[in-house]
Amino acid sequence: MTIKIGIMGYGNLGKGVECAIKQNPDMELYGVFTRREPDTVKTLTGVNVYHSDDILNHKDKLDVVIICGGSATDLPVQTPALAENFNVIDSFDTHAKIPEHFNNVDDAAKKGGNIAMISVGWDPGMFSLNRLYGDCILPEGKDYTFWGKGVSQGHSDAIRRIDGVKDARQYTIPVDEALEKVRNGEICELSTREKHIRECFVVVEDGADRQRIEQEIKTMPNYFADYDTTVNFISEEELKRDHSGIPHGGFVIRSGVTGLNKEHKHIVEYSLKLDSNPEFTASVIVAYARAAYKMSKDGLSGCKTVFDVAPAYLSAKSPEELRKTML
Amino acid sequence: MTIKIGIMGYGNLGKGVECAIKQNPDMELYGVFTRREPDTVKTLTGVNVYHSDDILNHKDKLDVVIICGGSATDLPVQTPALAENFNVIDSFDTHAKIPEHFNNVDDAAKKGGNIAMISVGWDPGMFSLNRLYGDCILPEGKDYTFWGKGVSQGHSDAIRRIDGVKDARQYTIPVDEALEKVRNGEICELSTREKHIRECFVVVEDGADRQRIEQEIKTMPNYFADYDTTVNFISEEELKRDHSGIPHGGFVIRSGVTGLNKEHKHIVEYSLKLDSNPEFTASVIVAYARAAYKMSKDGLSGCKTVFDVAPAYLSAKSPEELRKTML
Repeated sequence: MTIKIGIMGYGNLGKGVECAIKQNPDMELYGVFTRREPDTVKTLTGVNVYHSDDILNHKDKLDVVIICGGSATDLPVQTPALAENFNVIDSFDTHAKIPEHFNNVDDAAKKGGNIAMISVGWDPGMFSLNRLYGDCILPEGKDYTFWGKGVSQGHSDAIRRIDGVKDARQYTIPVDEALEKVRNGEICELSTREKHIRECFVVVEDGADRQRIEQEIKTMPNYFADYDTTVNFISEEELKRDHSGIPHGGFVIRSGVTGLNKEHKHIVEYSLKLDSNPEFTASVIVAYARAAYKMSKDGLSGCKTVFDVAPAYLSAKSPEELRKTML
Repeated sequence: MTIKIGIMGYGNLGKGVECAIKQNPDMELYGVFTRREPDTVKTLTGVNVYHSDDILNHKDKLDVVIICGGSATDLPVQTPALAENFNVIDSFDTHAKIPEHFNNVDDAAKKGGNIAMISVGWDPGMFSLNRLYGDCILPEGKDYTFWGKGVSQGHSDAIRRIDGVKDARQYTIPVDEALEKVRNGEICELSTREKHIRECFVVVEDGADRQRIEQEIKTMPNYFADYDTTVNFISEEELKRDHSGIPHGGFVIRSGVTGLNKEHKHIVEYSLKLDSNPEFTASVIVAYARAAYKMSKDGLSGCKTVFDVAPAYLSAKSPEELRKTML
C-alpha cells in the first residue's frame, strides 16, 4: 500500500517533487496535472500527464495532491478549490497573507473532511519551526533569520524588467560580521543593510547604458535601495556557465539567557546549505505530504501548518522504531 | 489561570527548572519535592519544599510534575509511579533503555489518564528531533551527531573514582577536521576516535603517582580507551577558578542528496552552544511541560516523546498569533 501522489503544476518545484517521491519507497507518483496541453509536457520520469481541469475524474486514485503553483495568483485559488476534494499541500510563502490563506483553506478542507497543509518548505517551513522552538525554549531571547547565500528569483526578475537588460541573476548574501555578532550572543538590532548584501550578475543588450542600469538597480525601492548592492556585468555565456544553479540556504539563530540572574547565554543555530532550492523545498513538502496522509487516516481534517504536525507523522517508520533508533 | 508545576528532585536540573519557570509568565512553581528533610533544603526562589512521600496530598494543586532525578535509578521508578497520578515529564537519557522505559510509563499514564512526557532535553530531545526531521526530509543521506565542547559528568565521575584523584573535570570536544568533512557533504564513516577528543583536568592528592593516574585514565575501557585523551594536572584553585561552569553543546548535521541523478547536495546543521547544560535542559523541559498540560486538556493521555508533540503545543501563544508572527 503506497501513498498515491498527484502533482498540480509542473515547474521547478513540481519537478523537484517528482524526484523526491522516487526517494520515498512508501510513495508513488500517480500523475502530473497541468494547465498546459498535456501532450506538450514531457516529465522527467515519464509519469502520466493530465489536464488540471480533469483532476476530479481522478479523485479516487489520489491520496494527496501537492500543489506546486505560485503564491501570487495560483495558490490563493487552487488550494481552497482542491482542498474540498483532496488532501492537499502547498508552499504558500507570502508571509503577510498566510492568516487569510489559512482561513480560506481551512473552510474548504473542513467542508471536504480533508487535511490541507499550507506554507510548507524551508521559509516558511523549517525556519518557522526553528523560530518557534527557539521562542518556546528560550523565551528571554531574540531570533535572527539570515538568508543565503542564494539566488532570489524575485530580485533576479526585477532586474530583468529594466530596459536594456537581457538576463540577470541576483544572490542574497548574509553579512559575516552580523552573523558573528549574533553567534557571539550579542543581542542587537540589525538594520536591513547590516544583515544582507545583494550581488547582481547582469547581461545587457549591445550598446546598453551600463551606468544607467547599475544606477536603476541600486536605487530600486524595496528590492535594492536599502542594501549594499554590487552589480557585475557579464556575458550571456558566463551567466550560463557560472550562474545556472539555484542554490540557497540561510540561518535561524536563537540567542537567549537563563539562570536566576540571567547569567548564562545560549545560542541555538539552524542552518541550511542547499545546492537546489526547489529540490530541497520539494523534499520538505513530500515529507509533509506523508504527514497529511497519516493525519487524514487518523480522522483529522482542516488546514494545518508545520506548527500543527507532530514530527512522528513525517516518518514512514513506526513510533517504536523511531524511539529505538532516533531518540 | 497559570499552569501549576511541581519539581520532584532538587539538584542542578531542578534548580534550572525553578529558574526557567520564572521566565514563563503562564506558569507558576507550586513547590519542590525532595527525599531529603524538607527543612534542610533552601530553594533559590524561596518556594515551598515538601517531602516527596507527601506528593499525593498535593494532587489537586499540581498540573504537571517535572521529575528531575537521575536516569540510572530514580526515573525508572519515579516516572511510572507518578504518571498514574499526575501529568509528568522527565529527561530519561539512557538511550538504549528508552523503549523499556516508554512501555512502563505508558501503562501507568494510560491507567491514570495522564500525559507522561519522557526523554526531554537536548539529547535525547532537540537533537533527536533534528535527526528525525533530517531523516524524513533527506531520506538518502546520513546524520552525524557531535557533542561538545562540554563537560561530561559521567566521565568526570569516572576519573574521580581513580585512586589518588581528588577532583576532576572532563571536556568532550568535537574534532574540527571531522566536522568540516561532514559540513562539506562528504558521506563518511567516522570512528569514535575521529569524532571526539577528551580533555581532562585532574586534581591529585599530595604525593600521588601522576604517571599511573594518567595511564589509568587513558586506558579506561568505554570511557577513554577509544579516544585521543589529554590529561592536565592542575591545582584545586585552578579547577575552581577555570572549570566550575557546566557548559555543553554539540551539532546534528544531516547530509543528503536530491535530484533525478542525485546530483544536488544539501547540508542541514543544528547546533547548540550552551553556557549551562542543566539550565538549557530545564528550559526545554519547561516548554514541554506546557505541551503536556495542553495535550492533557485536549483529552490525550499516555506516554509521549518529543516526536509526538506538535510544535504549537509548546507555545503559550495562540495558533493564530503563531501563524501571524512566526510562520
